[in-house]
Amino acid sequence: MSLGIVTPATLHFEAPLPLQSGAQLRDYTLAYETYGQLNADRSNAVLVCHALNASHHVAGLHACADGQPLPKSEGWWDNMIGPGKPLDTDRFFVIGINNPGSCFGSTGPTHTNPDTGKPYGADFPVVTVEDWVNAQARVLDALGITQLAAVLGGSLGGMQALSWTLQHPTRVRHCVAVATAPNLSAQNIAFNEVARRAIVTDPDFHGGHFYEHGVVPRRGLRVARMIGHITYLSDDVMEAKFGRELVGRELGDAPSYSTQDIEFQVESYLRYQGDKFSDYFDANTYLLITRALDYFDPARTHGGNLSAAMAQALAKFLVISFTTDWRFSPARSREIVKALVDNRHDVSYAEIDAPHGHDAFLLDDPRYHGVVRAYFERIAREVKA
Amino acid sequence: MSLGIVTPATLHFEAPLPLQSGAQLRDYTLAYETYGQLNADRSNAVLVCHALNASHHVAGLHACADGQPLPKSEGWWDNMIGPGKPLDTDRFFVIGINNPGSCFGSTGPTHTNPDTGKPYGADFPVVTVEDWVNAQARVLDALGITQLAAVLGGSLGGMQALSWTLQHPTRVRHCVAVATAPNLSAQNIAFNEVARRAIVTDPDFHGGHFYEHGVVPRRGLRVARMIGHITYLSDDVMEAKFGRELVGRELGDAPSYSTQDIEFQVESYLRYQGDKFSDYFDANTYLLITRALDYFDPARTHGGNLSAAMAQALAKFLVISFTTDWRFSPARSREIVKALVDNRHDVSYAEIDAPHGHDAFLLDDPRYHGVVRAYFERIAREVKA
Repeated sequence: MSLGIVTPATLHFEAPLPLQSGAQLRDYTLAYETYGQLNADRSNAVLVCHALNASHHVAGLHACADGQPLPKSEGWWDNMIGPGKPLDTDRFFVIGINNPGSCFGSTGPTHTNPDTGKPYGADFPVVTVEDWVNAQARVLDALGITQLAAVLGGSLGGMQALSWTLQHPTRVRHCVAVATAPNLSAQNIAFNEVARRAIVTDPDFHGGHFYEHGVVPRRGLRVARMIGHITYLSDDVMEAKFGRELVGRELGDAPSYSTQDIEFQVESYLRYQGDKFSDYFDANTYLLITRALDYFDPARTHGGNLSAAMAQALAKFLVISFTTDWRFSPARSREIVKALVDNRHDVSYAEIDAPHGHDAFLLDDPRYHGVVRAYFERIAREVKA
Repeated sequence: MSLGIVTPATLHFEAPLPLQSGAQLRDYTLAYETYGQLNADRSNAVLVCHALNASHHVAGLHACADGQPLPKSEGWWDNMIGPGKPLDTDRFFVIGINNPGSCFGSTGPTHTNPDTGKPYGADFPVVTVEDWVNAQARVLDALGITQLAAVLGGSLGGMQALSWTLQHPTRVRHCVAVATAPNLSAQNIAFNEVARRAIVTDPDFHGGHFYEHGVVPRRGLRVARMIGHITYLSDDVMEAKFGRELVGRELGDAPSYSTQDIEFQVESYLRYQGDKFSDYFDANTYLLITRALDYFDPARTHGGNLSAAMAQALAKFLVISFTTDWRFSPARSREIVKALVDNRHDVSYAEIDAPHGHDAFLLDDPRYHGVVRAYFERIAREVKA
């Protein structure tokens, strides 16, 4: 069953948000959505944290002006969250929050900088996973939620889920961290950096102040998104989906011998994804979010010792990885599990044999969803109806 | 021992070279170098084929105007080729040829199109691995070499080595194919395509006719090279070389919180590589060479059956792969070996446990060089002194 039409809300905050960099964000708005009902003792709240290009719109559909469902408006994790779904909105009160710096409703680079009266652009302060967690905590405060039944996230969202257990240990009972890592590898940072260079060196970027010029650094955004898509898919699933198939030709046919036209199906797919992304995503947000990924490293302030970093957590954990995910490989999840085991924390770990690479965390795989469902049933038993 | 100073030569060809696309290349020059002495019965010649950004300058040093060795002018495979080296120039006559379409001396996009009197630019005809092999064969004809003792190449050079055994089966006795593949995977093509898009969408590319505008699409070349470098290195070696180290800071220090400045060592490395590459490499050549990679697929005309394709080979083979090469993984080399075994061809296969990824084929690894040395000693026994 689907949630049907859901409606986003916003909260405005006058008190400045101190940021890890030393800067602060003042006079900001956060967009959020909630699904299901908060129970009487406010113990069934689950926060869902989003990754790079997602938002507070986690599940359900948005409405057109006439009240009808907007086509293709399904939330990004609608297969996971809803009535009777693995994270069951008949039992849990689910919250999605758009992170500051993003471009889907919360205050970000496209919004007005109160210090200048002009759009922030590249002057939007650098935000980290820790800053996002603190911003999310303020939304929970406003909703009267002292403690979360669980925090759930995949990829960059999983980093936020982990960080919740360290920044606010008493406010989270369970952490479900999917397809994530305790920090980025050099290779992960390298891919982010190439994507950022493509954007920053696009002449239409104008040092991040392209809004004033009425242009968008589309070329850079396209290249950034194409790189991203390669890293989201496994080598095998790319091969199965596209192989060496030529556009408009039979297998075995000679190609058209062109260096600039599309020849292979995989090129057509990537160009389409790049074009689509450049239509809606903000270039400054791309820089901010990839940097938040780069910077996340809870072990840094513990001499690189992740076990020492995870000592302060009080939550119970479910960690999930996917065999073919080469962006955040199972080995990275096992680092998290080891650090939790070192601390005698309660941790369950599932390594799902799935062909889809990093993308698997967004797909409807019965074994994966089965694990999440079972874990949330366990949590539901601890929660009063 | 090093070869010392070596001198490039050129050959001019008046007869047009028919190309796989149906076009032809006319009035062209090929640059080449040779090392060692051709023996009396001309049976000790070894052709070395180059990959993307390499050239005919395989070994030895180039001279300055004053006759002294030019600093940093070592050939790209100097650790492999020279007196007493694995491919021993005291025994073999080694030939390196710059492929047409490249930018190091042979006719390419920066040269004058005889049809227009202007630089070819993007109008340089699309060249394939098969075209390069035919061009190389003409150089051998001119040098009076009927049959090669061996053809040797790594990566894209390995594809040329394989293709030699299919296009000119009687002209090659041994094929040494290192870190290569029987065709590109969808993921390989995808990385090439992103690099090409970065170049083609750089406003300074001018549809490939940037020479007339006095500019170079440096931004695109930089991004292309950065992507390339990520795929040349293994995840592990990147981690070992750079990890999460910050530029100008101690480990554990906070970063400077910037989205555009260099923070991590790996960023500094990639930007440096990108800058250096954009100083010397031709953008149209980049498009041509990555397309030659994309198109190579000897099985295509055999219904995708590589064993059927390899049936026509008469050479003996040495195939070498590296465990951490994720660009052309050992699995791809094993496909080649299987196709050769299916045909009862004489094939030796070495899978070298090396940490360096695809780059390993250019490095001086004792086990790797030991295998190549042993194989060339075997070939030397078949050759009259």
